[in-house]
Amino acid sequence: MQSNNKTPRYLEEFHPPARILMGAGPSNVNPRVLHAMTAPLLGHLDPDFIRVMDDVREMLRIVFQTTNVTTLPISGTGSAGMEAALVNILEPGDTVVVGINGYFADRISQIATRCGATVHIVNAPWGHPLDPKAMEAEVKKHPKVKVVAMVHAETSTGVQNPVAEIAQIAHRHGALALVDTVTSLGGIEVAIDRWGVDVCYSGTQKCLGCPPGLAPITFGPRAEEVLKSRKTPVQSWYLDVTLLRSYWSENRAYHHTAPISMIYGLREGLRVVLEEGLEARFQRHSRNAQALWAGLEALGLRLFAQEGVRLPTLTAVHIPDGVSDTQVRSALLRQYNIEIAGGLGPVAGKIWRIGLMGENAKPSNVVTLLSALEEILPKMGYEVAKGEGVAAAQRALAA
Amino acid sequence: MQSNNKTPRYLEEFHPPARILMGAGPSNVNPRVLHAMTAPLLGHLDPDFIRVMDDVREMLRIVFQTTNVTTLPISGTGSAGMEAALVNILEPGDTVVVGINGYFADRISQIATRCGATVHIVNAPWGHPLDPKAMEAEVKKHPKVKVVAMVHAETSTGVQNPVAEIAQIAHRHGALALVDTVTSLGGIEVAIDRWGVDVCYSGTQKCLGCPPGLAPITFGPRAEEVLKSRKTPVQSWYLDVTLLRSYWSENRAYHHTAPISMIYGLREGLRVVLEEGLEARFQRHSRNAQALWAGLEALGLRLFAQEGVRLPTLTAVHIPDGVSDTQVRSALLRQYNIEIAGGLGPVAGKIWRIGLMGENAKPSNVVTLLSALEEILPKMGYEVAKGEGVAAAQRALAA
Repeated sequence: MQSNNKTPRYLEEFHPPARILMGAGPSNVNPRVLHAMTAPLLGHLDPDFIRVMDDVREMLRIVFQTTNVTTLPISGTGSAGMEAALVNILEPGDTVVVGINGYFADRISQIATRCGATVHIVNAPWGHPLDPKAMEAEVKKHPKVKVVAMVHAETSTGVQNPVAEIAQIAHRHGALALVDTVTSLGGIEVAIDRWGVDVCYSGTQKCLGCPPGLAPITFGPRAEEVLKSRKTPVQSWYLDVTLLRSYWSENRAYHHTAPISMIYGLREGLRVVLEEGLEARFQRHSRNAQALWAGLEALGLRLFAQEGVRLPTLTAVHIPDGVSDTQVRSALLRQYNIEIAGGLGPVAGKIWRIGLMGENAKPSNVVTLLSALEEILPKMGYEVAKGEGVAAAQRALAA
Repeated sequence: MQSNNKTPRYLEEFHPPARILMGAGPSNVNPRVLHAMTAPLLGHLDPDFIRVMDDVREMLRIVFQTTNVTTLPISGTGSAGMEAALVNILEPGDTVVVGINGYFADRISQIATRCGATVHIVNAPWGHPLDPKAMEAEVKKHPKVKVVAMVHAETSTGVQNPVAEIAQIAHRHGALALVDTVTSLGGIEVAIDRWGVDVCYSGTQKCLGCPPGLAPITFGPRAEEVLKSRKTPVQSWYLDVTLLRSYWSENRAYHHTAPISMIYGLREGLRVVLEEGLEARFQRHSRNAQALWAGLEALGLRLFAQEGVRLPTLTAVHIPDGVSDTQVRSALLRQYNIEIAGGLGPVAGKIWRIGLMGENAKPSNVVTLLSALEEILPKMGYEVAKGEGVAAAQRALAA
């Protein structure tokens, strides 16, 4: 019997392959987190859900290393966190200095421009860190800089920027320090209060080990003053932190329906982080990255980020001459179920980006990827000494 | 042995009670949807995830009854959908007419104001529908109205507005029709193309039977023209539909990291909707609402919304004189695990709001709630003829 009525694909079940997500995020998630998301839904004003909200805020403060009252998850992904940080602090006509050494700092400048701010850019070469002296020189040029913005861990290059030092410069000139920690929070140290960071946001899908969909954010006392003294309404109602704070604190004033299941997941993800302990977690990220770097270099590959400022959470590596970016990534995905990321913007086709974030920062992933590269690269015309990448990683892990 | 080191609550496991969510949303979710969210994460540019995106768009078009190319889920809750609709269409100085007969239409006017638009309001009493004649009279007063905005199913009052008629008026005067279907999509008919709606958004947590966190949105050809001819950038980068469309269509240009697990859930929720069939689903919502109304009236309670324009998905009912709003709702929650909602704004303390949305529009919920009210209300000083509410609902269901 033949039928012309083929069932449309969307009515079929979907069973995704079990990938090892070593791209720039999302990262794999602890099964406990996915399980927590299946708990029965509660209403967004249910007293039992309010306990969950309180727990999440308390744990976010520990992870951000802050006592900031206004610490909560924005109901959107990391980019919504970036936008929330900027729209709440900026008003039309404000002056912002942005340090740009990658794709995501450029996004900050784009969003600040959409807020009506005047944006002054201090560039550093991709792969190098921001230069605090150059930042200070730029800040000094303008009569009233409101915000100095930067990305702590630049996901596009694998570089770590000197946040504490630049935050001090901002304060010395009466400006706020606004920092993106999307690829650092939960993976390397982020010390909001000690560093004097005034506004900071992150995402859940990288080193916090949750699915994408929420953006933890925190506003310090200086930032709170700015919120209070605004002359114009925040241009985004959805991201207006003064309204959000009213829902997330004792007031419980209804704003929008919180993404209940995602917040269950975040609570569980934060529990996993705190059970491991921040210090142990940072060490684990560092140890595995050292092993990955040793392995890549043993295969003759060159790391993109300068030594000394490399992110353990995200490693950028030069694609060898003559090797096809997409063929290698496609072979990794199709034959080994491993995702790594390509380059963004000016380094598209020139670098790969390898994430070791949250759950994924573990020896088996380091070794599995190096082993796969040892098999794939020779087929693409790049000879490697087979086994040497894995062996170098093993030695680093044993050290 | 005694210890001063009490484990903080946030490190304990959390097991929410299994509530029947008959408030104004979120609603309970089909277990298939929660299960789908536990599938292994994929990267947001993984070819296998792109198939999921395509499936979701195709099913959203069926549910919206549209062929609009730009149909996709916004990565935020229903309010993010509202903001996305407005920020993409409006520029500073534009003129908007908003029909307001409830809380959520008022929110539209607030967000439109934050977009720099001049907002003209046409009020109708809460509990009554918008008056198309009054809407047209207001539109005629202003030289160039860009948008006529309204809420299809007003969650704050349980009233359904005459969308198709008002959309025609908008077009007659060269304006776009912008419609909120947060409490209608998937529960009662929403026919974007036939009604001539130009911009429409909804939420996943009500009649679509998914957790909160995504906002389906659709832009028709007239709205696309407006997007193309904007003179200023959209004030929100995160919600800029021209950028989002580029990621959700063939281009696949990276914008932000999609909330992967939520989109798995939406795909499964839409499959559930289409397996049931839209027409059958609308009938189920209607049949159960009729039973609820019969039951409430049999208990002597008065419905808030005018007859003929009542929403099957959300029923507002007057709180009887002398009965405490919060005591009744608290008893329902604590003793019966049933959530219903109170009134918002001017009707706080005066009405209850009872949702029968998605999975929850079923006889067992109608009967369970009526039975609980029959037990609780007499304890609060309001006598009822026990069993008559349930019996009336049963008769309506059998009819």
